[in-house]
Amino acid sequence: MTGFAATRKLFHLPRGVIYLDGNSLGPMPVAAADRVAQTMREEWGEMLIGGWNKAGWMAQPRALGDRLGRLIGAEPGSVVLGDTLSVKVYQALAAALEMRPDRRVILSDSGNFPTDLYMAEGLVAGLGRGHQLVTVAPEAVEDRIGPDVAVLMLTEVDYRTGRRHDMARLTRAAHDAGALVLWDLAHSAGAFAVDLAGTGADFAAGCTYKYLNAGPGVPAFIYVAPRHQDAARPALSGWLGHAAPFAFEPAYRPGAGIERMRVGTPPVLQMAALESALDIWDGVDMAALRARSVELTELFIVLVEPRCPDLHLATPRDPDQRGSQVSFRFPDGYAAMQALIARGVIGDFRAPDIMRFGFAPLYIGEDEVRRAADILADVMENRLWDDPAYHVRAAVT
Amino acid sequence: MTGFAATRKLFHLPRGVIYLDGNSLGPMPVAAADRVAQTMREEWGEMLIGGWNKAGWMAQPRALGDRLGRLIGAEPGSVVLGDTLSVKVYQALAAALEMRPDRRVILSDSGNFPTDLYMAEGLVAGLGRGHQLVTVAPEAVEDRIGPDVAVLMLTEVDYRTGRRHDMARLTRAAHDAGALVLWDLAHSAGAFAVDLAGTGADFAAGCTYKYLNAGPGVPAFIYVAPRHQDAARPALSGWLGHAAPFAFEPAYRPGAGIERMRVGTPPVLQMAALESALDIWDGVDMAALRARSVELTELFIVLVEPRCPDLHLATPRDPDQRGSQVSFRFPDGYAAMQALIARGVIGDFRAPDIMRFGFAPLYIGEDEVRRAADILADVMENRLWDDPAYHVRAAVT
Repeated sequence: MTGFAATRKLFHLPRGVIYLDGNSLGPMPVAAADRVAQTMREEWGEMLIGGWNKAGWMAQPRALGDRLGRLIGAEPGSVVLGDTLSVKVYQALAAALEMRPDRRVILSDSGNFPTDLYMAEGLVAGLGRGHQLVTVAPEAVEDRIGPDVAVLMLTEVDYRTGRRHDMARLTRAAHDAGALVLWDLAHSAGAFAVDLAGTGADFAAGCTYKYLNAGPGVPAFIYVAPRHQDAARPALSGWLGHAAPFAFEPAYRPGAGIERMRVGTPPVLQMAALESALDIWDGVDMAALRARSVELTELFIVLVEPRCPDLHLATPRDPDQRGSQVSFRFPDGYAAMQALIARGVIGDFRAPDIMRFGFAPLYIGEDEVRRAADILADVMENRLWDDPAYHVRAAVT
Repeated sequence: MTGFAATRKLFHLPRGVIYLDGNSLGPMPVAAADRVAQTMREEWGEMLIGGWNKAGWMAQPRALGDRLGRLIGAEPGSVVLGDTLSVKVYQALAAALEMRPDRRVILSDSGNFPTDLYMAEGLVAGLGRGHQLVTVAPEAVEDRIGPDVAVLMLTEVDYRTGRRHDMARLTRAAHDAGALVLWDLAHSAGAFAVDLAGTGADFAAGCTYKYLNAGPGVPAFIYVAPRHQDAARPALSGWLGHAAPFAFEPAYRPGAGIERMRVGTPPVLQMAALESALDIWDGVDMAALRARSVELTELFIVLVEPRCPDLHLATPRDPDQRGSQVSFRFPDGYAAMQALIARGVIGDFRAPDIMRFGFAPLYIGEDEVRRAADILADVMENRLWDDPAYHVRAAVT
């Protein structure tokens, strides 16, 4: 387990904390504070309106999209940043549905992150054309794919269990049935190498604040396969997706390629932070990252299971079937997680009973995994959550 | 002309520059750099995921919305921040259209900012129910309001000419005809006191990076009149607009009141900058601001017109009919503006022939107006734009 000592120094991690919640919000790249300060003082402060061109703000959503694209196996020119993941899912789903006008089913699974399902619900209600959002158990997805399915919309890695779908297989099955596929990469981008182009994905979306470490909030990203870019009608047809935004034409003309998926003014300060995060990612070997991720998650499971018989592994035992997190089910999981956090091991809890731990090799190593397992074992063996002090109000995680 | 000397010191303005483009991107509040740095180092850096609760990130879109609400005459609990203006217009328009199911016309004017029209186009195309976007000349709006109009969608202040609609009168006319009204406040918020509640507006949206000085990019804001909040269906039904976002329920239930207009994870760094901007606004008397704005725009017109006979005033002469900008038409306006910018007076150009100057009393005073007028007169009298050095590629403004 060597090779990531260098990247670890590039992150700010508070003293006394073992941070296993980077799958919810990644830690701050040390360089990000200065980068954002520079963007504020030297660009916004000094260039004022000129920053859009002189500092390259206007071109960043596309330029940063290409850099991020390497991590998810996207073709150059197929990723653009902006908005939130919810909005990007909406855009992709709206475009995909219109490309399958004779079909009425959006197929998803019960492990999808709720906002994807909610956005689909909202879209379907607005369209009012009898589309149906069908959700089945994750393991039942493949069997449900059929000729009525317009779009298969899945989050590759389950936010609760860490179960990872077989992207290549399900994409193929969907295509064989004539459906399009939209992948939510929230827990994939930066967790392992995604291969959008290789698997033939049609659409994808994701956020940058989890494993990518770009900071709290926007921007998200959207991917549209090059073969679909000219056919995809932007439902959210904002001026920055127009073919000539600064011509201020009265009617909308979609921009070329992925540019049409831009909507409004991009978040310049947040993009500056993302840039610092991508500076780190540019040097990362994704195969080595994945190998380390598997080592760390395996080690955590091996260390925790024998010492914590009350915890039931919710994550697949086969590393090929999981992302970069490990989850355990435990009825008192919320209180136990609070006790753990109070002792410096930060994971999180997802209702009804999931204790969730994310492992990001860029800044988490074997030593932290061993210490976290020790502390978790101590919490469990001594039922530390019975201490009333831990029964505090839920932290938003 | 006194009273704003104090606020001027609160902004960073580059030396040698007279900044008359705050209607496109406001300058940086001096405190914003430290505030954002603090948010990064002390909140993101040290609290990590805990920042959502401990630092109040999750509650900010609503809390900042209430602070901003004072400037636009909104009732407490009727404004929330997030996304971009384009997205907020889409949300408001989608909700409004559903509240007038028997009507098919969205009425707007040719002076509206294109993204509003584009978003309406995209929405209408997606709905596929025969809605029609009708745009008439600004002065013809009132006559066109009729029983077929579902929503009157207007930008209060024309981004090119600075012409200001009579919000009270047009809102009343629309209501008399049974229509709803959506106001785009991009060039109103922070330019003068808006009275959404008093005029009976139904919906409004705006951005925070122009007169409000919150920095390049998101967040935007949306207003929904309290009487409509429970009826407004969120088309973009994201998880943070859910009644219980962290219950991760499978089906969407809209949140109470304005909360349902939230979509995804808010832009924490951009909100920190907005907070610094609002710290300044909290102390501003909006009536005094408007009085000063009128003085400054009047002065600029009075100084420029006699000395620049080639410039034709595009802004209404009656101060009651304009926002806080002055625009002149001039066929060589683009080149002339470049020459002006090269001499330190920053305005901008809007096709085909508009030279645009914004006057923000918080940091622009009589002295700058006089100097800007002198320099503009010099540029015009000596045809400085004929110098080939000024014929450079267009700056994005």
